[in-house]
Amino acid sequence: MDFFFKPQAVVVIGATPNPLKGGNAIIKNLLTCFQGDIYPVNPRYQQIEGLTCYSSLEDIPAAVDLAIVFVPARQVLTAIEECIVKKIPGVIIESGGFAETGPDGQLLQQKLAELARKSGIRLWGPNCMGLVDAVNNNVFSFMSAEAVKRGFAAGSVSLVVQSGMLSASFLVDIMSNGIMGVSKVCSIGNKVDVNECDLLEYFINDPDTGVIGFYLESIPSGRRFVELCRKCPKPIVVLKGGKSPKGAEAAMSHTASLASNHRVLAGVLAQAGVFEANDFKQMMDICRSLAIYPQRPAGSGRVAVLTFSGASGIVAADFIDQMHLSVAVLSEQTKSALQKLFPAWMPATNPVDIWPAIEKNIGTDVDVYQESLQAVLADHGVDAALLITFPGNARVKFDLADIAAQAKNACKPVFVLLMGLREEVFRYQKEAMSLGVPVFQELYRMVECLDTVFRPRTAINAPVQQLTFSGGSLSPDQRLILESTTGAQDEYVSKQILQSYDIPVVKEKLVDNVEECLNAADALGYPLVMKGLVAGGVHKTEMGLVQMGIPDRKTAADMFAGLMGKMKGQGKVLLQQQVSGKVELIAGLIRDPHLGPCVMLGIGGIMAEVFNETIFAMAPLSREDALDLISRFRGKKLLEGFRGAPVLDKEKLAAVLIALGNIGISYPRVREIDINPLIITAAGAVAVDATIVLG
Amino acid sequence: MDFFFKPQAVVVIGATPNPLKGGNAIIKNLLTCFQGDIYPVNPRYQQIEGLTCYSSLEDIPAAVDLAIVFVPARQVLTAIEECIVKKIPGVIIESGGFAETGPDGQLLQQKLAELARKSGIRLWGPNCMGLVDAVNNNVFSFMSAEAVKRGFAAGSVSLVVQSGMLSASFLVDIMSNGIMGVSKVCSIGNKVDVNECDLLEYFINDPDTGVIGFYLESIPSGRRFVELCRKCPKPIVVLKGGKSPKGAEAAMSHTASLASNHRVLAGVLAQAGVFEANDFKQMMDICRSLAIYPQRPAGSGRVAVLTFSGASGIVAADFIDQMHLSVAVLSEQTKSALQKLFPAWMPATNPVDIWPAIEKNIGTDVDVYQESLQAVLADHGVDAALLITFPGNARVKFDLADIAAQAKNACKPVFVLLMGLREEVFRYQKEAMSLGVPVFQELYRMVECLDTVFRPRTAINAPVQQLTFSGGSLSPDQRLILESTTGAQDEYVSKQILQSYDIPVVKEKLVDNVEECLNAADALGYPLVMKGLVAGGVHKTEMGLVQMGIPDRKTAADMFAGLMGKMKGQGKVLLQQQVSGKVELIAGLIRDPHLGPCVMLGIGGIMAEVFNETIFAMAPLSREDALDLISRFRGKKLLEGFRGAPVLDKEKLAAVLIALGNIGISYPRVREIDINPLIITAAGAVAVDATIVLG
Repeated sequence: MDFFFKPQAVVVIGATPNPLKGGNAIIKNLLTCFQGDIYPVNPRYQQIEGLTCYSSLEDIPAAVDLAIVFVPARQVLTAIEECIVKKIPGVIIESGGFAETGPDGQLLQQKLAELARKSGIRLWGPNCMGLVDAVNNNVFSFMSAEAVKRGFAAGSVSLVVQSGMLSASFLVDIMSNGIMGVSKVCSIGNKVDVNECDLLEYFINDPDTGVIGFYLESIPSGRRFVELCRKCPKPIVVLKGGKSPKGAEAAMSHTASLASNHRVLAGVLAQAGVFEANDFKQMMDICRSLAIYPQRPAGSGRVAVLTFSGASGIVAADFIDQMHLSVAVLSEQTKSALQKLFPAWMPATNPVDIWPAIEKNIGTDVDVYQESLQAVLADHGVDAALLITFPGNARVKFDLADIAAQAKNACKPVFVLLMGLREEVFRYQKEAMSLGVPVFQELYRMVECLDTVFRPRTAINAPVQQLTFSGGSLSPDQRLILESTTGAQDEYVSKQILQSYDIPVVKEKLVDNVEECLNAADALGYPLVMKGLVAGGVHKTEMGLVQMGIPDRKTAADMFAGLMGKMKGQGKVLLQQQVSGKVELIAGLIRDPHLGPCVMLGIGGIMAEVFNETIFAMAPLSREDALDLISRFRGKKLLEGFRGAPVLDKEKLAAVLIALGNIGISYPRVREIDINPLIITAAGAVAVDATIVLG
Repeated sequence: MDFFFKPQAVVVIGATPNPLKGGNAIIKNLLTCFQGDIYPVNPRYQQIEGLTCYSSLEDIPAAVDLAIVFVPARQVLTAIEECIVKKIPGVIIESGGFAETGPDGQLLQQKLAELARKSGIRLWGPNCMGLVDAVNNNVFSFMSAEAVKRGFAAGSVSLVVQSGMLSASFLVDIMSNGIMGVSKVCSIGNKVDVNECDLLEYFINDPDTGVIGFYLESIPSGRRFVELCRKCPKPIVVLKGGKSPKGAEAAMSHTASLASNHRVLAGVLAQAGVFEANDFKQMMDICRSLAIYPQRPAGSGRVAVLTFSGASGIVAADFIDQMHLSVAVLSEQTKSALQKLFPAWMPATNPVDIWPAIEKNIGTDVDVYQESLQAVLADHGVDAALLITFPGNARVKFDLADIAAQAKNACKPVFVLLMGLREEVFRYQKEAMSLGVPVFQELYRMVECLDTVFRPRTAINAPVQQLTFSGGSLSPDQRLILESTTGAQDEYVSKQILQSYDIPVVKEKLVDNVEECLNAADALGYPLVMKGLVAGGVHKTEMGLVQMGIPDRKTAADMFAGLMGKMKGQGKVLLQQQVSGKVELIAGLIRDPHLGPCVMLGIGGIMAEVFNETIFAMAPLSREDALDLISRFRGKKLLEGFRGAPVLDKEKLAAVLIALGNIGISYPRVREIDINPLIITAAGAVAVDATIVLG
């Protein structure tokens, strides 16, 4: 992929002297930045922007390692064929008019894909803005030449954006506001060949990239992408467009991509240690914070707040409390150090309202922020500091260079909020960017970014283990079912298979005559549950085929007769021990079109659909993955012996989740597994009802 | 209160020529803005800033209607006494050093309160920044004279801020960024006398105020405040600082105020139709949006999105879908109108990606935003439009004046996102402010504000009804309990009282010998529940005093003996019909220190503490209040016949909630009522267990 990022010679197919056209901007931008040779190609011109223009590729007298194509869609295939002949390894196709425009464009795009597959040429795009590399000063894009002339601040954040216009407006915005420096900004459009996985793979080894941010509308190679994320030692931030059904509709018409169910993707990204963003500028703010703190700082996230406004300190404390951070308790030593700056009546507590200290020290040389920061950063109970400041107020001084130095010396993050005079805020903002101090203009955003910096980097610390799959006790019949049947299996068959994977299931027996029924009933013990099983009868409860709390032999006989009657002799009756437990979970497996088999955990029973708290992880699961999945479960309190309920051995639940994933990995025809409910008893979690869907 | 806002003559006690001091800034600010007479008072000077300075109030030769006090705390009492003698009706005390500084300051503040009570003088502050009135050009504050000289944009948003510095930095920030015009900005500090209620009352009738925003850390007169909010026909936005325990701690040390449980307040504010904000700038954004749309626009909030970047459209659609808005479905007529602007291959669907249309029309006079906007606003299926634009890109034109005119003509809100070149964004931002177009720089914020504009204005449309309280069937004994006992009443007594208020309770009987027990058991029918009731034994389950599912007479006799044994003859046994129902709720009443009796509704059973979804409303409840409370309940799906559960008659549940409120209103000793569970059966909601706490 180096030919995309570090070419020696670039050809522009579709170059033009018309300054209103993109094919002119590409040339101008190359002239502004690129150090290698530039070859415009267009049969209609002799010269463009002072460069010799060639009528075709074959006329170019030297080897070329990158082509930028910006000709109408119907001419692109020919252009690529010529690139293949010219042995150009990489092409960025910036023209639109492909899959995003309907069936004809889709066909054209398929042909591009075939060309790439057959020839080995790498195609980037189409329908994209190309790339900007602020560190190596390369702009291979038709973005506005004026914007390019203003230049880009270099930083360590590389961005991959599945959108053209967005990447341009974005860059102009963050550059002109002095928000963040960037490394490589890649607009990848319709992703006919080069996609987010290829770029992630490249960035893992790119010394200029410290943090990677993605805006993606589809992740068709989801499994590969997530696997790469797990291997990547650099922080990754993903903003997924098209989460909701409505959003997904828009996504289809925009880049002709199929959106995957977002809950699944969100779970899998969390499992991989990826940070998820919701909005564009929020994503930038998270990226730039992580760029300054690519390693998680030490400590649990105990925050000292220094503020010129008590109110801001209070609201900051509210936000801190809502997140994984906490408001630091200052040591006595710190308090007495602070007290020297403050009037006697002012108790130094965190959040530290420094205004009284500023007033006390008016007319002196004391920098209250500086000295207060020194005091709190020296405290072993403080892991980070937030400074809330007021640029433009003559009485509030603060020295960003000192703040940067203190943060660095203490190895503790210091985040700064700037609220006040527009031009002063801007001045500090730019200075902060060059000093590596994360500054913000909204309180929530600042706390959110600090929280992200302190979040565990799961995937980094817990690489995937090698797994050995159990399930060896499957019978030949069970294997046959998993390998060749179709549709929903009944709960008895489903649970037998789960049991072969060592998932605890309720004690039960399938009977078809009253004598067998009564023997089984006596053996299982009372009270018991009886269910009528008919082929295809998934909704047993709604069909009146479930009887709970059968207290004795006599009732059992009556119920048996009743159920057989309802089923008109077409089914069998399943007798089960009645499992009692206050806590019901759902556990299962789904096969996502992009991510493959994913394991699910959620609240069971009637609450499942009111509070959709299902969470997901991509199979296979290591023990650590399974325990992490459980730790992400919002209902985990229910597992911890809540209100007299039994404490669940998390290792045992983890084993169930691992087994579910293993079934999905081992048997590709398994489309879905649903254990509902998985009841927590004193003896552990028991699968009481289950369905395996094949096909 | 007019003397605070429209004084004829102002005296400044603590005026000084020292430009580093606040007492100088107050004078300068008066000179910059105020049209009436200004009297500096300070015995040490003859003249200040060219004005005659008086050594005491009695030397002033004219009547004065407002005093601004900025002397050390220990001199404030004397100053106020002199103001009383001088018959000045209102004083703004801007000095600090009162309740926020500890016991001595608290005492001083109490003395101020007494003075106000006895004399009738109105005291504003202490420990505040005073007020700014941008419409009438008054600044009664020590805020920086340079900031005041830059001036304030006038608007219809009045702000009340319980914080000094915040209001200053805030104002400087929003003014220098051209975000919003303001009417009156009031910093009310420690609120010794004038508080948020007084100002709200004033603003209800203030013709210059269209929207009212509050930042409050405490609302000690919460009940009065909420009642005023319900009466106020203007939109109100509240940001409450000190929501979390940690935040509340900070609030105590900052303004020495007790924070109320935020869930209660949040529920009551929602009931009153108040919009709640979380962060400072977000609050401004909500306020300015409501200032432009003080009436809820027509329609259900179906939004058309016009965007130069497909990605932004997709993410906007995701946000729209998360809120109460929806992505509009465009009519065929609209689509064909749009299609004329677009290339043939581009299907015009919402979100409308207008970039292809811009490219198609390059070099023409067509304003694609203007014409697209016309098309979508003419659509009867569109209630509002979002425009996502790119200032600074030569190819993207848009005309804010036209957008403003179109929005006005169509009576449909049009919100604009600006992403791009800093200075261009700023230019459009200022223009948009003067034109009354809400512009934003972050997508989520824009959609959030549009959502707020479309939210129902409950309190405005449903004023509180006059209520008649039931509960007439209380026995004299029950009245005695409610009027004079203390502590938790047992569930039998509690439910008897609830029944007197027509709350359906489980059929039950209290027994203390086996014969009575068996008679009662037979009468109630099996299966039944038996509970041992001991005085003070609230945690029956944990004490093993609850037996469920007793199937027959024989078991009942055994259980009776067992329970009596466990209680060592100290209690009685309560027999109950076993109520079965899939859905368990909690309903209750709490007496909030600031808000008085408030009714609660939540998920019952074991989920209650995992998913804390309790919601609140202030009693007494009208039928509309009760139905609104139910409609705000996140678990309301459970009431609607979910998964074969019975449909609950919402009027009956409303009656239970109204009754709970009425008990709280009628009996001030009722501290807490807990119905847990309130089980939904085919016959309606039944109180199965309940506790009334008195004292």
